[in-house]
Amino acid sequence: MKSKAPPGPRRAVVLLSGGLDSATALAIAKEQGFEPFALTIRYGQRHAAEIAAARRVAAELGAKKHIELDIDLRAFGGSALTADIDVPKQRTDEDMAEGIPITYVPARNTVFLSLSLAWAEALGAFDVFIGVNALDYSGYPDCRPEFVAAFESLANLATKAGVKGTGHFRVHAPLVSLTKAQIIRKGTELGIDYAMTSSCYDPDSVTGLACGECDSCLLRARGFRDAGVSDPTRYCSTGG
Amino acid sequence: MKSKAPPGPRRAVVLLSGGLDSATALAIAKEQGFEPFALTIRYGQRHAAEIAAARRVAAELGAKKHIELDIDLRAFGGSALTADIDVPKQRTDEDMAEGIPITYVPARNTVFLSLSLAWAEALGAFDVFIGVNALDYSGYPDCRPEFVAAFESLANLATKAGVKGTGHFRVHAPLVSLTKAQIIRKGTELGIDYAMTSSCYDPDSVTGLACGECDSCLLRARGFRDAGVSDPTRYCSTGG
Repeated sequence: MKSKAPPGPRRAVVLLSGGLDSATALAIAKEQGFEPFALTIRYGQRHAAEIAAARRVAAELGAKKHIELDIDLRAFGGSALTADIDVPKQRTDEDMAEGIPITYVPARNTVFLSLSLAWAEALGAFDVFIGVNALDYSGYPDCRPEFVAAFESLANLATKAGVKGTGHFRVHAPLVSLTKAQIIRKGTELGIDYAMTSSCYDPDSVTGLACGECDSCLLRARGFRDAGVSDPTRYCSTGG
Repeated sequence: MKSKAPPGPRRAVVLLSGGLDSATALAIAKEQGFEPFALTIRYGQRHAAEIAAARRVAAELGAKKHIELDIDLRAFGGSALTADIDVPKQRTDEDMAEGIPITYVPARNTVFLSLSLAWAEALGAFDVFIGVNALDYSGYPDCRPEFVAAFESLANLATKAGVKGTGHFRVHAPLVSLTKAQIIRKGTELGIDYAMTSSCYDPDSVTGLACGECDSCLLRARGFRDAGVSDPTRYCSTGG
């Protein structure tokens, strides 16, 4: 029953999907002096390749501990990532800008942050990192700065430290206002090898290679081009 | 991909633990005209008897659907309900009034409400019921009205309807300012047979019968006495 932060470096829980963004958020947490505890949620997403990527990233970037937690959001349905709905391919910028995509998973980041908060409270940590990004995912309600701020307020009411005033929770979203290219430049400066990450919504079920055609692949590929950084992603189609 | 409320009675997601409070919250949701969708979270709590009780309550009170979702909060530790820590017994009122008990599960209600929100959004529902109670559980940070209000604000930022303005989420906590006796009277008026509910933190592992000595059993037994309602609970000890 630890209710106070233990001695030593400050601990932070970092949500780690295995994608480019969350790997960068983990590297930034380390850069800021936090001891990272990585949390990966297996929520029934189609892309198990992400989980393998999360393990590589946690090991490579030196997470103090890595928990993979199962929670089957397929029970609720309502998203192309958790239900039997085709992931859209080769969409144009106009298509992507139009409303909330069907790859949105209902309340996903609320669920993820609440689990991070649970672990943080059990660890005696007061910092949580999430790699959300409001620019490239403007259609997702739970990637916006106002969502992050509201969760931080909630966290300080929801926990022992909030009642006792013995600590203040912070939700860090260091990528929230960066473009994909800026994220890639930042991570590259921090020495991340993005080859170990997986961003594809619909990777090959055998090889785990990226499709090169879903929204996430298109945004990632363009990010590398715009950043002027060589793209290490391996694609299963010729499209990439 | 339902983003609008379907025709027919308004749907509500009701968190259902199998205890006395959540059973009453479900009956109140029905009384208010909602079609209840019951959500039970198996979070690694010791008392599997609660799950069996939740099934009885969902069936008896006519939940439209009942989902039991697994999420192993034992991975995080930090509570007598999820870790290998003894549940305290025969505590006095003074003991109970003193701070947050070790049966508190870090950020549990935040996790539970976030999952309810995920299901509600997938269902096209805008109402969530939770049987929290601030009087008898004054030590739990996430049983307070200000916590419930903060979650409701978050819900309206976290979801598609929040972005589009096509609906307003409400978090109903109809028991939040009631005493246990008032809750029991209300549920009895609504016809609940509390024999089917299970509130004990440490039930017998074989029979599932209540211990009669943990905080939850003591508060429940006193609630029946104060309400002047005959207590149908079966105890495994002579203490009840």
